[in-house]
Amino acid sequence: MNIDEDTFLAALLPRLATGDSIVVPAGDDCAAIQWTDDRLLLLAVDQVAAGIHYLQECDPALAGRKLLGRNLSDIAAMGGRPIYALLALALQQECDAAWAAGFADGVLELADACGVKLIGGDVCAAGSAVASLTIVGDVATSAVCRRSGASAGDRLLVTGRFGGSLPTGHHLHFTPRTAEGQWLAAHGVVAAMIDVSDGLLKDLGRLCAASGVGAVVDEAAIPLSRIDNKPVDLSAAWLDGEDYELLLAVPAGAAAGLPQDWPFETALTDVGEFVAASPAPVVDRNGRDLAGHYGLPFNHFTRGR
Amino acid sequence: MNIDEDTFLAALLPRLATGDSIVVPAGDDCAAIQWTDDRLLLLAVDQVAAGIHYLQECDPALAGRKLLGRNLSDIAAMGGRPIYALLALALQQECDAAWAAGFADGVLELADACGVKLIGGDVCAAGSAVASLTIVGDVATSAVCRRSGASAGDRLLVTGRFGGSLPTGHHLHFTPRTAEGQWLAAHGVVAAMIDVSDGLLKDLGRLCAASGVGAVVDEAAIPLSRIDNKPVDLSAAWLDGEDYELLLAVPAGAAAGLPQDWPFETALTDVGEFVAASPAPVVDRNGRDLAGHYGLPFNHFTRGR
Repeated sequence: MNIDEDTFLAALLPRLATGDSIVVPAGDDCAAIQWTDDRLLLLAVDQVAAGIHYLQECDPALAGRKLLGRNLSDIAAMGGRPIYALLALALQQECDAAWAAGFADGVLELADACGVKLIGGDVCAAGSAVASLTIVGDVATSAVCRRSGASAGDRLLVTGRFGGSLPTGHHLHFTPRTAEGQWLAAHGVVAAMIDVSDGLLKDLGRLCAASGVGAVVDEAAIPLSRIDNKPVDLSAAWLDGEDYELLLAVPAGAAAGLPQDWPFETALTDVGEFVAASPAPVVDRNGRDLAGHYGLPFNHFTRGR
Repeated sequence: MNIDEDTFLAALLPRLATGDSIVVPAGDDCAAIQWTDDRLLLLAVDQVAAGIHYLQECDPALAGRKLLGRNLSDIAAMGGRPIYALLALALQQECDAAWAAGFADGVLELADACGVKLIGGDVCAAGSAVASLTIVGDVATSAVCRRSGASAGDRLLVTGRFGGSLPTGHHLHFTPRTAEGQWLAAHGVVAAMIDVSDGLLKDLGRLCAASGVGAVVDEAAIPLSRIDNKPVDLSAAWLDGEDYELLLAVPAGAAAGLPQDWPFETALTDVGEFVAASPAPVVDRNGRDLAGHYGLPFNHFTRGR
């Protein structure tokens, strides 16, 4: 399409609502509105489209699972607990009832496993299949994690491994980091957090832009996915996307003790630190601009949401 | 598509969540969950697809306006106040930035006019354009209007006029009945309510099925839309759909005084009464089965959501 998501959103975001009961406006992983005296309601929407997020021959249950998983990853990035979901299915002419039922199965199986209640939906015809899911969750007001809280001196940590999401099938089979996100938020150590869905470099750039900081990354520390028992290239780790891992800023004092307390099998790795903003926000230990090095257009950072 | 919406939803609905904090589960115009001690949060999702709900050459702002309007109509049917919205846009390859911006304009202009705050969204590529919008509203717990409360003896009332939505352009330019819905709910006279989006006969059948009643309609009383200063046929009023009017059950005692109190220019018309359920739920004053007469498949009623 002749439209860049970040460019479109950058034009749209200033027109969206802020203030009043909206505690976190559009532009973070979820919007947050006042719920009870001490809890926020989290809301986000995400989509999967045939031929874009899954291939036409893909098991429909895996496509449905992926749709909910992407939304759970957004809730995880806020430190939240997912509660409700609404599903909108636009079905292409050739789609039959078995496909639609399979897709719904995939959504419902993961929903059951995560305690998410599907409370509404819509079905319509369309030229090609598109499904969207709105997730509703909550989080303690005191614990909510935003993209905008990182400061120079904070450590840069990531969960899991990066790269190769398509060839490894990770993009269909990933486990959303909701338990890890809730633990981190409750632990009170998160200065800022984002989920890595569009690529480590792009999403790190977004967190840097929202926080007004830069980042120095030790590339040798980045945990790499493995294909045929060999680690993927660094460029795959930076650019592939669909990792659905968490990337977070933690004050240096708190980061030191975190590995001892961390109760999950999921890796939690320190890969660098946040620094005062510069024209090239993400650099390696030699000061090399990584967006330029890996060929990511610079505007993703400066226009970031 | 080889799938009937009602059939698909009838299979899916029993698998969806109920109980706990879910006061109105999926299957009504909105789901309702506990919000504060005396208010419910209303949630619904609706879609528009290119070539289905609007033509490719349609002004994108009108398509966007229609999408939000459809959702506002769902909130109106619960007697609710719309508050927040989330927008998911799947854009086809040929779609340019101007089209997407125009669509967003249409959503935002109606949102501003109705006090709705757009708090989140997503943009992705797809084989054809599909947009979904999730609406969030609220309503006093004591005032919420469901489909399931009609009793034999209640009067059957409708707002506005019916039929000809496509040739008159009403399907793009309609005014959602949110003010009327809120007034009716606050007035405490609504036993059951639904919005008429899929056709008067089909949606009346859904309300009858949810309430376990039938309806006797005085066809001569149905308010008909006009084309070139001539009223549309009765079959158009029953079947066309996209009227986005309200259909409600009101206890006979309360219905008698309602026209005097009604403060809106929108017509409010008594078109019949609800009766004990029978195998053919919607009949005319001569007892003729209207679903059979107008060629609506019977299963829409018995399988109704």
